[in-house]
Amino acid sequence: MNKEDLFKLLQSFKNEEINIEHAAKVLEELPYKDLGYANIDNHREMRTGYPEVIYCEGKTIEQVSGIIRYMMGRNNNILATRARTEMYQAVKEFCPEAEYNELGRVITIRKKDPGETETYIAIVAAGTSDLPVVEEAYETARILGNKVVKVNDVGVAGIHRLMARMDVIRGARVVIVIAGMEGALASVVGGMVEKPVIAVPTSVGYGANFGGLAALLAMLNTCASGVSVVNIDNGFGAAFNASIINKL
Amino acid sequence: MNKEDLFKLLQSFKNEEINIEHAAKVLEELPYKDLGYANIDNHREMRTGYPEVIYCEGKTIEQVSGIIRYMMGRNNNILATRARTEMYQAVKEFCPEAEYNELGRVITIRKKDPGETETYIAIVAAGTSDLPVVEEAYETARILGNKVVKVNDVGVAGIHRLMARMDVIRGARVVIVIAGMEGALASVVGGMVEKPVIAVPTSVGYGANFGGLAALLAMLNTCASGVSVVNIDNGFGAAFNASIINKL
Amino acid sequence: MNKEDLFKLLQSFKNEEINIEHAAKVLEELPYKDLGYANIDNHREMRTGYPEVIYCEGKTIEQVSGIIRYMMGRNNNILATRARTEMYQAVKEFCPEAEYNELGRVITIRKKDPGETETYIAIVAAGTSDLPVVEEAYETARILGNKVVKVNDVGVAGIHRLMARMDVIRGARVVIVIAGMEGALASVVGGMVEKPVIAVPTSVGYGANFGGLAALLAMLNTCASGVSVVNIDNGFGAAFNASIINKL
Amino acid sequence: MNKEDLFKLLQSFKNEEINIEHAAKVLEELPYKDLGYANIDNHREMRTGYPEVIYCEGKTIEQVSGIIRYMMGRNNNILATRARTEMYQAVKEFCPEAEYNELGRVITIRKKDPGETETYIAIVAAGTSDLPVVEEAYETARILGNKVVKVNDVGVAGIHRLMARMDVIRGARVVIVIAGMEGALASVVGGMVEKPVIAVPTSVGYGANFGGLAALLAMLNTCASGVSVVNIDNGFGAAFNASIINKL
Amino acid sequence: MNKEDLFKLLQSFKNEEINIEHAAKVLEELPYKDLGYANIDNHREMRTGYPEVIYCEGKTIEQVSGIIRYMMGRNNNILATRARTEMYQAVKEFCPEAEYNELGRVITIRKKDPGETETYIAIVAAGTSDLPVVEEAYETARILGNKVVKVNDVGVAGIHRLMARMDVIRGARVVIVIAGMEGALASVVGGMVEKPVIAVPTSVGYGANFGGLAALLAMLNTCASGVSVVNIDNGFGAAFNASIINKL
Amino acid sequence: MNKEDLFKLLQSFKNEEINIEHAAKVLEELPYKDLGYANIDNHREMRTGYPEVIYCEGKTIEQVSGIIRYMMGRNNNILATRARTEMYQAVKEFCPEAEYNELGRVITIRKKDPGETETYIAIVAAGTSDLPVVEEAYETARILGNKVVKVNDVGVAGIHRLMARMDVIRGARVVIVIAGMEGALASVVGGMVEKPVIAVPTSVGYGANFGGLAALLAMLNTCASGVSVVNIDNGFGAAFNASIINKL
Amino acid sequence: MNKEDLFKLLQSFKNEEINIEHAAKVLEELPYKDLGYANIDNHREMRTGYPEVIYCEGKTIEQVSGIIRYMMGRNNNILATRARTEMYQAVKEFCPEAEYNELGRVITIRKKDPGETETYIAIVAAGTSDLPVVEEAYETARILGNKVVKVNDVGVAGIHRLMARMDVIRGARVVIVIAGMEGALASVVGGMVEKPVIAVPTSVGYGANFGGLAALLAMLNTCASGVSVVNIDNGFGAAFNASIINKL
Amino acid sequence: MNKEDLFKLLQSFKNEEINIEHAAKVLEELPYKDLGYANIDNHREMRTGYPEVIYCEGKTIEQVSGIIRYMMGRNNNILATRARTEMYQAVKEFCPEAEYNELGRVITIRKKDPGETETYIAIVAAGTSDLPVVEEAYETARILGNKVVKVNDVGVAGIHRLMARMDVIRGARVVIVIAGMEGALASVVGGMVEKPVIAVPTSVGYGANFGGLAALLAMLNTCASGVSVVNIDNGFGAAFNASIINKL
Repeated sequence: MNKEDLFKLLQSFKNEEINIEHAAKVLEELPYKDLGYANIDNHREMRTGYPEVIYCEGKTIEQVSGIIRYMMGRNNNILATRARTEMYQAVKEFCPEAEYNELGRVITIRKKDPGETETYIAIVAAGTSDLPVVEEAYETARILGNKVVKVNDVGVAGIHRLMARMDVIRGARVVIVIAGMEGALASVVGGMVEKPVIAVPTSVGYGANFGGLAALLAMLNTCASGVSVVNIDNGFGAAFNASIINKL
Repeated sequence: MNKEDLFKLLQSFKNEEINIEHAAKVLEELPYKDLGYANIDNHREMRTGYPEVIYCEGKTIEQVSGIIRYMMGRNNNILATRARTEMYQAVKEFCPEAEYNELGRVITIRKKDPGETETYIAIVAAGTSDLPVVEEAYETARILGNKVVKVNDVGVAGIHRLMARMDVIRGARVVIVIAGMEGALASVVGGMVEKPVIAVPTSVGYGANFGGLAALLAMLNTCASGVSVVNIDNGFGAAFNASIINKL
Repeated sequence: MNKEDLFKLLQSFKNEEINIEHAAKVLEELPYKDLGYANIDNHREMRTGYPEVIYCEGKTIEQVSGIIRYMMGRNNNILATRARTEMYQAVKEFCPEAEYNELGRVITIRKKDPGETETYIAIVAAGTSDLPVVEEAYETARILGNKVVKVNDVGVAGIHRLMARMDVIRGARVVIVIAGMEGALASVVGGMVEKPVIAVPTSVGYGANFGGLAALLAMLNTCASGVSVVNIDNGFGAAFNASIINKL
Repeated sequence: MNKEDLFKLLQSFKNEEINIEHAAKVLEELPYKDLGYANIDNHREMRTGYPEVIYCEGKTIEQVSGIIRYMMGRNNNILATRARTEMYQAVKEFCPEAEYNELGRVITIRKKDPGETETYIAIVAAGTSDLPVVEEAYETARILGNKVVKVNDVGVAGIHRLMARMDVIRGARVVIVIAGMEGALASVVGGMVEKPVIAVPTSVGYGANFGGLAALLAMLNTCASGVSVVNIDNGFGAAFNASIINKL
Repeated sequence: MNKEDLFKLLQSFKNEEINIEHAAKVLEELPYKDLGYANIDNHREMRTGYPEVIYCEGKTIEQVSGIIRYMMGRNNNILATRARTEMYQAVKEFCPEAEYNELGRVITIRKKDPGETETYIAIVAAGTSDLPVVEEAYETARILGNKVVKVNDVGVAGIHRLMARMDVIRGARVVIVIAGMEGALASVVGGMVEKPVIAVPTSVGYGANFGGLAALLAMLNTCASGVSVVNIDNGFGAAFNASIINKL
Repeated sequence: MNKEDLFKLLQSFKNEEINIEHAAKVLEELPYKDLGYANIDNHREMRTGYPEVIYCEGKTIEQVSGIIRYMMGRNNNILATRARTEMYQAVKEFCPEAEYNELGRVITIRKKDPGETETYIAIVAAGTSDLPVVEEAYETARILGNKVVKVNDVGVAGIHRLMARMDVIRGARVVIVIAGMEGALASVVGGMVEKPVIAVPTSVGYGANFGGLAALLAMLNTCASGVSVVNIDNGFGAAFNASIINKL
Repeated sequence: MNKEDLFKLLQSFKNEEINIEHAAKVLEELPYKDLGYANIDNHREMRTGYPEVIYCEGKTIEQVSGIIRYMMGRNNNILATRARTEMYQAVKEFCPEAEYNELGRVITIRKKDPGETETYIAIVAAGTSDLPVVEEAYETARILGNKVVKVNDVGVAGIHRLMARMDVIRGARVVIVIAGMEGALASVVGGMVEKPVIAVPTSVGYGANFGGLAALLAMLNTCASGVSVVNIDNGFGAAFNASIINKL
Repeated sequence: MNKEDLFKLLQSFKNEEINIEHAAKVLEELPYKDLGYANIDNHREMRTGYPEVIYCEGKTIEQVSGIIRYMMGRNNNILATRARTEMYQAVKEFCPEAEYNELGRVITIRKKDPGETETYIAIVAAGTSDLPVVEEAYETARILGNKVVKVNDVGVAGIHRLMARMDVIRGARVVIVIAGMEGALASVVGGMVEKPVIAVPTSVGYGANFGGLAALLAMLNTCASGVSVVNIDNGFGAAFNASIINKL
């Protein structure tokens, strides 16, 4: 529930379109709703401008379904990340409009049009193996109402592929750079644009990659200014961040 | 040299205010100037909107002086970070307007007014021991032309101190959070504002802090959305990033 | 066998309720019982006030069953942690009163009433994904005779959920804080209560979480006083510790 | 200012022993006092039962002196840890009753008698090289009003030395175990007492000790129940924790 | 082939019990035999007193079978460690006298009596979960001709169990200590005996155990003299080492 | 497409053997071809002398098939590393001449004869368990047109096996050394030859091997001059590097 | 005080050579002597066959002097490791027969002849920079009564230097191998002798050596059997261990 | 002494230009010369084509002087790396032709002309702070007889500086890339040349650079083929390696 929703609710009550019991029930759960295993933070949208997101890792199918059911009742758009196929199947049963991005492991449910910004976020990725993180970032940015342009497989081993796409990257308001292995793409892009760059190290690679640690350290130590970093494989976090900046 | 400077130069040449030798010499060094030990990236300002910054760690006093001397000749504002006192003293001799922030170890030289934005960057710090990083961030943000508000010593051990200052933090366009030890401040602030938060882990702490690693990992793993991270003690990087966002 | 049990045994023998062979056999195994693959520490209850607990990881089903069979013969309450479902099924066959907490992977057998303290232990957890550790702690604290209150899903990303429950947390005699990701909850709670806080980092999270290392380091580096830490995911250890303090 | 102090203040005001300006000034700073470089958390004593402590590492002599000066004006007992000799000398000038434990690097100022508990805390240390951490813990526990017994140099390499002192250790209400190298002392003591054990790993050792990491990991992985851990070399944290438990 | 075998061979040839072709073939492979995928070091027994051992991890069933087949032809006793059940089944087919210790994952084949020393090796283990490493060490020591005594489940959490067995431990010529978690047993035993102690850290434990790292670091940092360390879970290496010492 | 191919194409066009549409289409994709999920770097062969290689880890079977299909159309030799059996089976269907090295997990397709150098690369490996890396290196070196000699199972534990093969190693123009565990073979070989040595640490080993970290650090710290290192298990990288040097 | 000393004392008392007060005083301190800051383990020699050794790191000059003074009164040979020059100078004043090995940082005092074994310990070192560890090991082995042969600077980069000395190494009863950098020497020696090898990694090296970690991991992962490892730079521990074995 | 020198010596002896004592003395030390603290590997030049190099770290001034004195007597060119100024001053006294590169901390003595190759080695460095490693590599490559071209301060933050120098880099026979921070330069260069690239990570940077670990991991994980890596700050190793390749 964002501020606009709150105003509408109060107005409807005043106009006697809804009765006092209904209004009270909704307002009672305004700060958060306790489901026993989860406290849904209904206030977040009002506080931060964004609804709560469901991080599915480590939750049971029942818990995920329960949370989505409750949130649907409040007419929110819903984003569930790191969702396994079986979770999507369970949700699909009671919510046929749910969509699933298999590569990105993301469930989205659109109850209202999230809109689309005029400026866009560029998602730039080093290789084909980084696509799952790209898709998580893409779905997140889209449901938060952003225009997005994807630039895939432009790692620095063949830097002319990147150069050929610099115009579209420079045109963005915010740039997300996703790379595994040595993560050099973030520094190269960071040195060529005057926009905020959010770098996402991925766990792609082997050997001394140590699950993404190599790319993470590289991105934190970038010699380019204007680059900040989120957790390994955290496409969601990068897109959420980019969305805030894109909408400033 | 930014675009405006380039236009002026060309105009001056056309108006015959400067001769062709002068114009050619300046333009010849437009991409970069090779000093032997350093290639000054004169093109950076045009490309990224910001002049090159001197990172003094690992450089000799002679090298730092040489670079500053050259850049002064091009009428740039100058920012030199991680500068030891002796470096400042050497620079002071040939550049009396140089200023030194001792706590932040930063030399600044203002050849032209950097201006001041209407919106401001909030720099929020956990403890008194984090002040050197605060000052580095402050000087960087200021010379890049930003309004800045500092909120010091509001670590989560006494969270009411933070709550008392939330209004000024929420009023910012971008928030920098600086914290050592367990770095929890970034998550708490990130959960309460709807602005981009740039987190800077510091090496403050001891024992299992491992030179800032504890705070770094904590900030990368934040449960709050909208937080991105820069390198340990990297006040400069956070402020540079915040400045780009503040000026979008 | 605790001191009270020992007194009863000796009294029964004196009163000729049991014969000398029986008494001798029980006393012979007072220090420990060698099962070949395990030495049951029968003396522990007398020495530390608590019976031995079975840590099932790395043991075979036969070993776990054998140990439980032996301990049942001595009329102890039994706690087996990290027990797989098949272990429970094997135990159930010869001990129908055995109970299994599936989420917490804990088998409990109650041969005598453990009682319940007047003061209580608060178990405070950051997120739904931390529930397995919560349940391990809960079962441990209960069988050791403690009153327990659980406060779930109050992570710092929505700190008002925590504030709404501070009364119940402040009312406890000991507080257990369970959190993964950046583990900031321990510092925030630690700064607000005047009770001992035992922090349990969990392996919940991904990327640079490194199996709970991020939360562990954060908790060890807490800026709040009064917080101590146990091993990653060690709900049992936290509850055991809390029980000792709660019963002082 | 604790609750008792607050009651006295209000009573004095009502009895017209102090005027309204005086009372207002004190109350105005009740939540915290902003010194510019530090926010003194005056409310902590009321909230957690203990006054704020000054952690001197990373602070300048001027900052430490300024904070102590302010706190003295509020009649608090003062504890400053990790204080260098020069800090003590600076404080001594304006506060002659300040005392300095050189080995433990602790400054203490007693404005009121902290009292002494009937039950005691045992501080058990493995070797002579651990004494600086012992002394930090000792001074902390004493100024917080605890009776303390020290048991030095009883490392497990000569375990009969420990056995000879078990009576005094078992008699304590809380036990602090301080050990470097492999930190085995914590497990051995933990297996023999039925009291809460707070383990402090120290950075004593060399080679693969990695600054205390070996002892830290050992203590976190202890096979003994009832042991919790604080940061490497954190004598203060252990004693603070022990004091809370000792006074429950 | 050890020196005794070589003497016998030459004698048999001289006595015309074997012909020159036979003798030449055996001697030709004296340094090593190239199987394509493996070079069997036939010379090792002569050089170091012990035959080559087959480390099965990372080898295919065919490779293991091939190596054993070849070695059988040379009449050696054979030890194959880290062998999976299927490997044993494959070997069993062409070598019915092969034996398998399932817990220890070791295949042994006895072509000649390895003998038994008068002095013995004590294998002391902390817990039931360490038994696989115990068994690997046991089988190794036995086939190398040593008398062995096992002392299981005497971890320091119940130190009286260890004390009760000190006589048998002190009676050994070499002591192997096997422990996971915090590995404190090595230090405690090391402080009580005047014999060489070989410590084996195991990967038993969870959380901050990091696959045996905690026990490994603890053992390397032991405060007891006379303790040396082998790789994590390396029961074979410890027993091999102990055997050399036991037979000096 | 290498320079020779380009010349042929232009000549064919001039000779009217191919029409302008055909020539244009090929040249249009000269820099790279965008398949949506991948940008094939067609220019690499001209730029670096070697065609692009397909790293299959993290790619779907569809993606790998699609890339190979496209590259086949350009008449290139193809190398696909880290390919699972199912990938090979999918490729086999549309490309019967594809070959699969199962141990090395490599698919190769030869459209033109890669030739064979007169000088050779020696691949020296420590143990049988290192063979998968050996095979990856072997296939890579072969398809790039190199003569290769393999020297298997000559680890330093039986150094006479290595000595017996030094002639063939010294005769090579470049030496690849592949070893897991402690990786000492690289230093020993490096001390005995006057040729460039490329060391490949493998993840073979257990316990404190930490996935190849032990061998990696050892090789980086070699006391022998002339040794450089590639990533853990990176047989491809070593062979590619060796090929460049062999063909200088 | 060893068993022989004890027998003499009792005999002297019986023979009335010493009076009862004298005998009682000595026996009173038999288990240990509490100096306040240290508990001298007088019983160790009887229990383990070796007197206590003073590890000077982290102790003050006063503490070291005090401990030595006390031990001198009991007529022990004394070994103090990691002793700074100033410590030696302080000891020299009250004990003129004290000797100092500056390179090895070891103080030795001989009150009785330690004897010399017939068999010898070989100390084999990789490079000149490892000499401090060699000297610590040498002094330790000598005062414990061992014959010692040193073989310096035989690192594997020039393996013929090692081969030239193999006879003297093979002739030893125990071999200590000391090496930094990649520590390969331990594996090479271990593969060529049939004696127990104790490996000491040193912190010699730079870059990815990480203070000896590279050599430590290499030695723990050795492919040679019969090698065990002590802490980084721990020459004392290796020699102590070797002495026990040499004297079996 | 290389092969040519050996031939000359034998010829001189045959021609009776030198007597048998002289020839014998030189030949006696052909394999190595034992100075007590060091075994000079005189045979290395014959075996590997290069004379032994003195690594000064951890050696005393006396040891370095002694080794140089001996080597001078054999008329070798001498290279001493990691040499402190005082070492140079000591050497200068008895060897006035010694030269010192202060930035690179390298002493060189030229007894015979090392010559100069026709092809050249390019040394490409990311920033001014990397110059000490550049100079160590430069001096090494020069005394080994190579032509060298340096390309300084072309880090990827301003990639046009690198592009402007690509011709000179592509013209080299071998390329050394030296970079700290995130080390991205190695990947970018590796993607653009068809020559062997030897990457040297440097310890330049701060925070999560961890002494060069970030750049090291990045370079090992490079997505560009043809790149191999040496130890952190190891300019010598890179140049030695490059020289071998340049002279193939």
